[in-house]
Amino acid sequence: MRSYRKELWFNVPTRRAFVNITPDVVGCLTESGVKEGLALVNAMHITASVFINDDESGLHHDYDEWLERLAPHEPLTSYRHNLTGEDNGDAHLKRQVMGREVVVAITGGRLDFGPWEQIFYGEFDGGRRKRVLVKIIGE
Amino acid sequence: MRSYRKELWFNVPTRRAFVNITPDVVGCLTESGVKEGLALVNAMHITASVFINDDESGLHHDYDEWLERLAPHEPLTSYRHNLTGEDNGDAHLKRQVMGREVVVAITGGRLDFGPWEQIFYGEFDGGRRKRVLVKIIGE
Amino acid sequence: MRSYRKELWFNVPTRRAFVNITPDVVGCLTESGVKEGLALVNAMHITASVFINDDESGLHHDYDEWLERLAPHEPLTSYRHNLTGEDNGDAHLKRQVMGREVVVAITGGRLDFGPWEQIFYGEFDGGRRKRVLVKIIGE
Repeated sequence: MRSYRKELWFNVPTRRAFVNITPDVVGCLTESGVKEGLALVNAMHITASVFINDDESGLHHDYDEWLERLAPHEPLTSYRHNLTGEDNGDAHLKRQVMGREVVVAITGGRLDFGPWEQIFYGEFDGGRRKRVLVKIIGE
Repeated sequence: MRSYRKELWFNVPTRRAFVNITPDVVGCLTESGVKEGLALVNAMHITASVFINDDESGLHHDYDEWLERLAPHEPLTSYRHNLTGEDNGDAHLKRQVMGREVVVAITGGRLDFGPWEQIFYGEFDGGRRKRVLVKIIGE
Repeated sequence: MRSYRKELWFNVPTRRAFVNITPDVVGCLTESGVKEGLALVNAMHITASVFINDDESGLHHDYDEWLERLAPHEPLTSYRHNLTGEDNGDAHLKRQVMGREVVVAITGGRLDFGPWEQIFYGEFDGGRRKRVLVKIIGE
C-alpha cells in the first residue's frame, strides 16, 4: 500500500470565500503515483470546509447568502462561543452545513469524478493562514 | 489490495425522491470479493446526495418538507445560479445538507452497519439519468 | 493491509449531548498498530452524529440552540415520522446537519489533525445504549 500526505496552505483576505482546489489535489495525486485508492481531503481548521460542488460564481453567491441566513455572523452576541473573545461563532456552524472533508475515489490514476464535480476550500473565518490536508492511500 | 468500481444509474421521474440503494451496494460488495476494507458511495452529480438513515416513508416526507423550508425550490429568482438558465439552485443547497457521500466499513465481507442503517440516493433535480459511484478498497 | 474494528458504547442520560471521543479513537489507533492509513469513525445509529470541531462548551451550547431552531423537537406532531410511535423525528434531521461519520488520516501512527480538531459523538435521542464504530485500515 502506498501512502501520500501533503498540506495545502491558504490565506484568504476576506472573511468568507470559496477556492477551487481541484488542480492542487490533482497535482498531489500525480505526485503520489497512486492508481487505485482513495483520496481524503479535509480542512485542518474547524471554521473551514472542504466540499464538492459546481464552479459557478452565482452558486457561490447563493451559498454565501444562504449560510448567512442559517447562521448569521452578527450580532456577535448571539453566539456564546464569542464570549471566549472570538468573533467566529457563525463560522463553526457554517462549516457543519458544508462539511469538513471529502473522500474521492481514485481510478486509473485519476480523480473519479462526475462531469461537474470540483473540490472547494470553503473559508468562513479568513484573514489568516490556514491548511487543508490531502491524504492518499492505495496502489 | 483489491479495488472495485461500479456506477449505479438512476432516472427518477420526479424532481425529488429518496431511493434505497442498499441492495445495490451489497451486490457490489459481493462482486468485489472484499472482506475487510472501506466502501465509498458518492453521488457523481452535484444536485444529488448519498446518505445513510432510516427506510421510513414518514421520515422521508419530513426530510422533503424540511429541505424545502431550508432551501425552497421557488421562487426561482431567489437563486443567482438560476440566471445561468438552470432551475436547480435549490438542489445544490439541499445536497449540502444531506451530503455527497458515505464511507462504510466492510467487516467479514459485509457492510458493517448498525440495526437501522440503510443507504439512500437523494435526488433533488430528477427527470434525467444520473449516477452514483461505488468504490471499494480492501482485501 | 491491516484492518481493525472496535465499537464504542454510550448511554447518554439526556436527550441531547456532545461527548469528546478523541481519547477513545486514539486508544483504538494505538491498539491497531496502524502507522499510515485511514480511520473511519461513524455513528451506528441514525439519530446520532460523529463530527469534528472544537471542545468548547459555549460552542456546544450554540450548536444545540441552532439545531433546535433548524429542527425543533416539539411539537412532536410536526414530524410525520413520529406517527410511527417515535418522538425522535427531529433527531433524524439534526443528525444530517452534523453528519454521520468522519474519516481521519493516520500519519506516523497518529491522528493527523489540525490544532483544534477533536472528534465528538453527537447524541440527539439519548437515554439508551448506542454505538459508534471505529474502523481503521492501513499499514
